[in-house]
Amino acid sequence: MLEQLKQEVCKANQGLVDHDLVTFTWGNVSGFDPETELLAIKPSGVPYEELSPADIVLVDLKGNVVEGDLKPSSDTPTHIELYKAFPGVRGIVHTHSDWGTAWAQAGKSIPCSGTTQADYFYGDIPCTRQLTKEEVQNGYEKETGTVIIEAMQGKNPVEVPGIVVHGHAPFAWGGSPEDALHNAVVLEKVAKMTFLSYQLSGELPLDDYVLQKHYERKHGENAYYGQSK
Amino acid sequence: MLEQLKQEVCKANQGLVDHDLVTFTWGNVSGFDPETELLAIKPSGVPYEELSPADIVLVDLKGNVVEGDLKPSSDTPTHIELYKAFPGVRGIVHTHSDWGTAWAQAGKSIPCSGTTQADYFYGDIPCTRQLTKEEVQNGYEKETGTVIIEAMQGKNPVEVPGIVVHGHAPFAWGGSPEDALHNAVVLEKVAKMTFLSYQLSGELPLDDYVLQKHYERKHGENAYYGQSK
Amino acid sequence: MLEQLKQEVCKANQGLVDHDLVTFTWGNVSGFDPETELLAIKPSGVPYEELSPADIVLVDLKGNVVEGDLKPSSDTPTHIELYKAFPGVRGIVHTHSDWGTAWAQAGKSIPCSGTTQADYFYGDIPCTRQLTKEEVQNGYEKETGTVIIEAMQGKNPVEVPGIVVHGHAPFAWGGSPEDALHNAVVLEKVAKMTFLSYQLSGELPLDDYVLQKHYERKHGENAYYGQSK
Amino acid sequence: MLEQLKQEVCKANQGLVDHDLVTFTWGNVSGFDPETELLAIKPSGVPYEELSPADIVLVDLKGNVVEGDLKPSSDTPTHIELYKAFPGVRGIVHTHSDWGTAWAQAGKSIPCSGTTQADYFYGDIPCTRQLTKEEVQNGYEKETGTVIIEAMQGKNPVEVPGIVVHGHAPFAWGGSPEDALHNAVVLEKVAKMTFLSYQLSGELPLDDYVLQKHYERKHGENAYYGQSK
Repeated sequence: MLEQLKQEVCKANQGLVDHDLVTFTWGNVSGFDPETELLAIKPSGVPYEELSPADIVLVDLKGNVVEGDLKPSSDTPTHIELYKAFPGVRGIVHTHSDWGTAWAQAGKSIPCSGTTQADYFYGDIPCTRQLTKEEVQNGYEKETGTVIIEAMQGKNPVEVPGIVVHGHAPFAWGGSPEDALHNAVVLEKVAKMTFLSYQLSGELPLDDYVLQKHYERKHGENAYYGQSK
Repeated sequence: MLEQLKQEVCKANQGLVDHDLVTFTWGNVSGFDPETELLAIKPSGVPYEELSPADIVLVDLKGNVVEGDLKPSSDTPTHIELYKAFPGVRGIVHTHSDWGTAWAQAGKSIPCSGTTQADYFYGDIPCTRQLTKEEVQNGYEKETGTVIIEAMQGKNPVEVPGIVVHGHAPFAWGGSPEDALHNAVVLEKVAKMTFLSYQLSGELPLDDYVLQKHYERKHGENAYYGQSK
Repeated sequence: MLEQLKQEVCKANQGLVDHDLVTFTWGNVSGFDPETELLAIKPSGVPYEELSPADIVLVDLKGNVVEGDLKPSSDTPTHIELYKAFPGVRGIVHTHSDWGTAWAQAGKSIPCSGTTQADYFYGDIPCTRQLTKEEVQNGYEKETGTVIIEAMQGKNPVEVPGIVVHGHAPFAWGGSPEDALHNAVVLEKVAKMTFLSYQLSGELPLDDYVLQKHYERKHGENAYYGQSK
Repeated sequence: MLEQLKQEVCKANQGLVDHDLVTFTWGNVSGFDPETELLAIKPSGVPYEELSPADIVLVDLKGNVVEGDLKPSSDTPTHIELYKAFPGVRGIVHTHSDWGTAWAQAGKSIPCSGTTQADYFYGDIPCTRQLTKEEVQNGYEKETGTVIIEAMQGKNPVEVPGIVVHGHAPFAWGGSPEDALHNAVVLEKVAKMTFLSYQLSGELPLDDYVLQKHYERKHGENAYYGQSK
C-alpha cells in the first residue's frame, strides 16, 4: 500500500543525514495520505542507512499499525495529533538538530530577524509552553502534539511550518515529506543565524513590511521567485 | 552571446557551493559586459548542480531579458543598480552565508579588526540603513540597490568590495564574477573571525596605519604580495 | 587472547575519528573482560588509522602488561580505577572533544537542559573537583580515576555514563566499547547544545518529570523506544 | 639544494589545507637548515594544490633568494627574524586560522586553561603588543618578527611554540616543518576550546602543578607518553 508515499518518506528520512540534521537515530519523518487517512512513518531506532521503503510503517489516525513488521517511531502519537489538527500538512519532520534544539532548551521562540526566515516563516518560530507533569506522565507523545497545536493557535500552519518544543527540540512540517524536510533545514539555518545575531545585539526586530514582502515574494498570490511551474 | 561571460558566471555560481556560502538556492552571481551593457545572471530558483552556461540569462540595464529561456534571479534589479553606480565592477555576488547574515540581522557594520579584512577591504564592511515601507512596497529589489549605493557614498567600491544589507544578507562585488566570489568568501570569513573577537573583547580597533599597510601591500601601486603578473 | 574484545576496542578507537571526537592521538578507548579481569586498551601515541587489533594491549587490574608489544595508553591507570569501581562497565572512552573540554576547562557540570541529554543521562553530567597538588604529583592518572569516582558517589554509573574532569576533558563509559563510544558522542553533542542554550538564557532547568520520562522511555523496565530485541 | 627540506616544506604547506587552517593562500610554512643557514619557504600567492617541492624558494638570512624562480612569501622577513632569535627552531608556520585569529584580533593571550594546551605549551600562548606606526611603515614584516621575539623574552621557544600577533594572526614553530604544523593545529584547537570555556566562565585558571605535570608527561626528561623511539 501507498508505495510512493513510503518511498518519499524513506528518502526524506535519509535526507536528514545529508543535511546534517541528525546524530544516530535522533529524528524521524512521516508522510500523510488524506484519502486513506494513513501515516507512513520511520520505524523506531533503525539507522537511516539501513532504511528501505519496505521498512516504513503505515499507521492509522488512532495509532494502529496497518502495515509493516517494525514498530513505528515512538513519536508517532505527536505526528498523528498534528495531521489531525493541521489540514493541508502532508509531511512532518522531527529532529534534535543542534541550533534549533539550543533555542528549545532555552525555552525561547526564534524571532524573525531577517529575510532568510521571512522567506519561509510568516513571523517568529514559536516555542511551546512546558508540558505539565500530568501531560508527561499520561500520553507524553500525544500531549507533545497538544502543546504544539496550542502554540500554533491563531497561526496558519502553512505559513508557520515549524516550531520548537520547550526543553525538547524542533518539529517542522509541509505539503509533502520533502517539503517538511526543506523547512526543517531552514529552521536549523535561521536558528543558527539568529543565535549569532543575538550575541551581537540584544534587539533584532524586522519591520513587518519586510516580513510581508519577503514571505509574499515566495508564497503569495503574486509570488515571483523561481521559475513558473 | 557573451559565451565566456556566461561560463564565468555559471562557474562562480557553482563556486558558492564549493565555498559553503549557500543553502538550497539562496544566492546568485552575475557578471557584467561593459561593451554591450548586458548582465549575465543566474536564473531564479535553479539548483547550482543543474546549472549550465546555457541557463544563464542575459539582461539589459533596464531589466529586459535579452537572451535565455528562464526567468532571471529575482534580485536582478539590485544587481543592475550596482553595475550602474559602480564603474569598474564586473561581477556581483549575493548570498545568505551564516556569519555575514548574522551581522546583517544585527544591523551592524563589520569593524575592520585585523589584517585579514585589511588585506581586502580598506576599512569596515558597512551595513546599510533599513529600507522604508515605501521602498519595500515599491520596487523592493531596486531599492535594495539604492540603500547599498547610499551606504557606499564616499567610499570606492573597488576598495570596499562588499556590504551587509540591514535585516537581509551580504552582497560582494569585484572586477570579475570570480573576483566577486573571492570577496564574498573573505566577507564570510572575517564576519566569523570578528564575531568571535567581539565576544572576547568589546573593543576591536585596528590602527589606521596597519590597515593602510596591509591594504597597500596587496593592492597599492607598490604591492608586493604574490607573483608579478 | 580476547581476540573479539581487541577487535571491538580497535574499532571503537577508530570510531573516535569517524565521530570527529579526536585530533591527532588525543583519545583512547578500552574494553574490559570480567572473567579474566583484563583490560584491552589502545597503545599510547599510535595514530588511529595505523591501529590493528594486534596492537591493542592487554593489561591486568594492577597495571601489568599481559600481552602486547607496545606501551598501553598513559591514561591506563584511570581506566583501571573506573573498572574497579563501576561494576557492569565494560568500555571506557577518553577524548579531548571540543565542546566537552570547554565545559571541563570552565569547571562546570553540564546541566540536564533537554530531552537529548535525558535520553542517555539521568541528570547532569558532573564535573569533578580539581586534583590537589599531591594527587597530581603522585600517581596523577590513578588519582584522575579517584576524583571521577568521588564525583559519581551516589550516582549509578549505568545511568550517568560520563563526566568531565576539571581542567582536563571528558570520560564516558558503557556496557561495551561501542556503547561507551556512543555515550561519548552524546556527551559531546549535548555539551554543544547546552553551551548554545546557555548563551541564550542563564536559566536552563528541565523539570524532573520530563527527565524521568525520557530516561525511562529508553532505559526503564517499560522502555518503548527502538525495536524489541 | 636541500631537496629533502624542500619536500618537507612543500608537504607541510599542503598540510595547512588538510588541517583546515587556511583559506585561499592565507598561510605559509618554512623550514631552516642550520648548516647552510638557508630557509626553504613557500612562494607568495601560489595555491597549495599547485605547489611542488621545486617551487619552494631558498633564501639566506639576509633575505636574498639563493634558489628558485618565484618570489618567496611576503612574510619571509618575519621567518628570518625568528630563526635568528630562536635556536633549535627548524620550522615556522603562519596562518589566519579562525579561532587563533579571533584571539589575535581581540589582542588577548590564550590563557592555559586545560591539559590540552599544557601538553604542548608550557603556559599561556602570548599575544604580542601592537606594532608602532614607525614599525609598520619601515620594515613591517621584519618588525613583526621583532614584536614576537619581544613577547617571547624570558620564555623558551621550544616550550612555548606559538604566539598570536596583535591585530593579525598566529605564528607557530617547532623542531621541523611538520612539528611546526602540529603546533599550529594545537594552537587553533585550544584557541577554540578556550574561547568556548571563556563564554561559560570568566575565570579559567589551571593550577601550575597540573600544567607542569602535563607538559613534562610529554616533554620532560621522564616523559612517558607515546612509544619509546
